[in-house]
Amino acid sequence: MKQVVTVKRRALAANEEHAAELRSRFATSGTLVVNLISSPGSGKTTLLEATVRSLKGELSCAVLEGDVATENDADRIRALGVPAHQILTGGGCHLDARQVETGLAEGGLPEVDILFIENVGNLICPTTYDLGEDFKVVLLSVAEGDDKPVKYPAIFARAEVAVITKSDLLPYVPFKLESVKEQIVSLNPQGLIVVTSSLKGDGVEQWLDLLRQRLTAKRRQQG
Amino acid sequence: MKQVVTVKRRALAANEEHAAELRSRFATSGTLVVNLISSPGSGKTTLLEATVRSLKGELSCAVLEGDVATENDADRIRALGVPAHQILTGGGCHLDARQVETGLAEGGLPEVDILFIENVGNLICPTTYDLGEDFKVVLLSVAEGDDKPVKYPAIFARAEVAVITKSDLLPYVPFKLESVKEQIVSLNPQGLIVVTSSLKGDGVEQWLDLLRQRLTAKRRQQG
Repeated sequence: MKQVVTVKRRALAANEEHAAELRSRFATSGTLVVNLISSPGSGKTTLLEATVRSLKGELSCAVLEGDVATENDADRIRALGVPAHQILTGGGCHLDARQVETGLAEGGLPEVDILFIENVGNLICPTTYDLGEDFKVVLLSVAEGDDKPVKYPAIFARAEVAVITKSDLLPYVPFKLESVKEQIVSLNPQGLIVVTSSLKGDGVEQWLDLLRQRLTAKRRQQG
Repeated sequence: MKQVVTVKRRALAANEEHAAELRSRFATSGTLVVNLISSPGSGKTTLLEATVRSLKGELSCAVLEGDVATENDADRIRALGVPAHQILTGGGCHLDARQVETGLAEGGLPEVDILFIENVGNLICPTTYDLGEDFKVVLLSVAEGDDKPVKYPAIFARAEVAVITKSDLLPYVPFKLESVKEQIVSLNPQGLIVVTSSLKGDGVEQWLDLLRQRLTAKRRQQG
């Protein structure tokens, strides 16, 4: 067990180096990088579909998709005319910075305004791996229940933005939205919370504004 | 990376030994052991609440709850008068057989007809860890989307039973039930599929019958 911990610590240290290189590269290109993390089925790809569709003609986007298996998610993004590359982990439970480097090299993605990295569907393991992103986003669907932030505290504490998804299901599920917001605020007092329904469009404009503001702030800071 | 794989292989080998000891112990006591695996929020605890409530007076049950944080799930089971013990992994993304041994020793759970082990909410990492169970059950809520079996193939191939949960939400979500069943059958031709709504009660009796049959078969086999 001690050996497992040591090896994991070494893997994380190696990851930090690659993440720093990525962060430096994204600073030079002025690309805003967003790392999306959630359980399987919280609606990461559906939010990205709504996002790239809405930003078309305004900001250039690309997507790195992380999955255990299938090219399905990259195909969904490419169908909208947006460059996407699928990273297949073949069983791996999270993305690491080296996979992002390789994915960027192999995927032939162009330099863009916003690069979205959709992590492997997993609310635990991706939390500790820095991918050189500007910020992490955690998604939680209202169908997953209102007890999740305190049960998976690490990601809700670290993600600068929490997106509550599938709000169109609120009438049909037991989900106390105010309780969830209180849990998130207690774990991350500086965090932002957006409530969305990607299918109905609710809250998507607020999410887009947040992306626009972050991109502007990043470029101003580096300007 | 190679070292990580070696250490993981060693950890899995050690796990196999503890799992074999547990399996032998459960054979002696004639306890049916069920390992429930799913994403966070697929409804594992809610299915267990419906299960132990329905079996009360007929079969004795106990529950080992695995979570990253909080005693919430064990509290929910104990509130129904059923013995439960919470295993807190403190960040760990799955249960292992040694944690089950320790949990049984520390939890003071009585010998029962059916022991349920609710794994940490994670559709990937728990898949490869044998806990000495009779069979694994994978749960998938209809709100998680109908593309999940092929995207997370390992657990759907290994779990003898797949429970599709929250069927009461079917009218409100895009979820092709037949497509999901086909994916599961292609990954696991021998597997059983049960469609349930723990809140409405649909399919729960079929799930209970499956448990009764497995318990009877186990005891007959061990004569």
